Amino acid sequence: METPDDSSLAERHRGRMQRKKAVIDARIDAADRDCGLILVATGNGKGKSSSGFGMVARALGHGMKVGIVQFIKGAVPTGEEQFFRRFPDEVRFHVMGEGYTWNTQDRDRDIEKAQAAWAVACQMLRDRSLGLVLLDELNIALKHRYLDVHRVVGDLLARPEMQHVVVTGRAAPPELLAVAHTVTDMGLIKHAFSQGIRAQPGIEL
Amino acid sequence: METPDDSSLAERHRGRMQRKKAVIDARIDAADRDCGLILVATGNGKGKSSSGFGMVARALGHGMKVGIVQFIKGAVPTGEEQFFRRFPDEVRFHVMGEGYTWNTQDRDRDIEKAQAAWAVACQMLRDRSLGLVLLDELNIALKHRYLDVHRVVGDLLARPEMQHVVVTGRAAPPELLAVAHTVTDMGLIKHAFSQGIRAQPGIEL
Repeated sequence: METPDDSSLAERHRGRMQRKKAVIDARIDAADRDCGLILVATGNGKGKSSSGFGMVARALGHGMKVGIVQFIKGAVPTGEEQFFRRFPDEVRFHVMGEGYTWNTQDRDRDIEKAQAAWAVACQMLRDRSLGLVLLDELNIALKHRYLDVHRVVGDLLARPEMQHVVVTGRAAPPELLAVAHTVTDMGLIKHAFSQGIRAQPGIEL
Repeated sequence: METPDDSSLAERHRGRMQRKKAVIDARIDAADRDCGLILVATGNGKGKSSSGFGMVARALGHGMKVGIVQFIKGAVPTGEEQFFRRFPDEVRFHVMGEGYTWNTQDRDRDIEKAQAAWAVACQMLRDRSLGLVLLDELNIALKHRYLDVHRVVGDLLARPEMQHVVVTGRAAPPELLAVAHTVTDMGLIKHAFSQGIRAQPGIEL
């Protein structure tokens, strides 16, 4: 049996949810356009690349084909690469190779590799058969000026109208944020690494 | 041929990268423990559930088995569900059903559904064969007090030592943050929705 407290709580909840539903319904009615999105995941917290790979899974679930270029990463074989390479007809997966710049310490070679990876990305950004292109850690290549941000933005804007593109990595440049539809700043509240726990397979790699 | 400017830029870059490498190497040496992590993705920005599904893909790439419970969501068939249901031997996928609470407006029924979903989650949290459990939008059920946060935290802490668990949703409660190893606050910088663009398959659903 409901006590008076329970029933007034339920009543308040119902009122709050009705108001919330009205606001959300109005917003849903107002949002009626479709277009290919530019999404950016940046910030110092965990989840930038993971969120990109989650969108890859979603896109595949809707029958889309997907292109992935991983910038900077590549020294260590990752779970995402192992997994998405299972679907060669649906996913084109390109890894730049040779790992993070702080392991190579050779600016000219890094620039060369980043530009070669960008050439692969450009092929994907011109391919109408791809519904989603993930440019993982591209922001790192932009931050170090391995790639010219104006050229990158120009190539992104020239892609097919309905193609989505997800860009990840810390320190996204303002020129990219300006043209993005959706931007998330992934703030670091805490990280297992600072507690002496090393990168765990399935989580960080 | 390198101009003096180029060569001094390359030199400065090398010095900066060497210092960065030293700092990172020291941190990597200090982080030497392995354990099952509790990760929380919260905040108002896009990417919380996506990052959870990205970690699912990573875990599958490492040969782990994964359990997924989606709280609150369920009215609309999603890309992630369509995709991960392709792998019934590797992924146990449970959707609570009946959609967001602001569409149901019935607190008692919501509580019942959330508790039934938590019972499924508990089975996964006791199953040593699962390397990762994703509790998608659990924070919403906690925020509305459909589930008792102390009971939830107790069940999380009682899971197998090496099992990772990812909890997503806005407004993660402090009791959960306290026991989490990694917490990301996904801040909303901008969202396509506010620009009149509706939820896009492969991106938001």
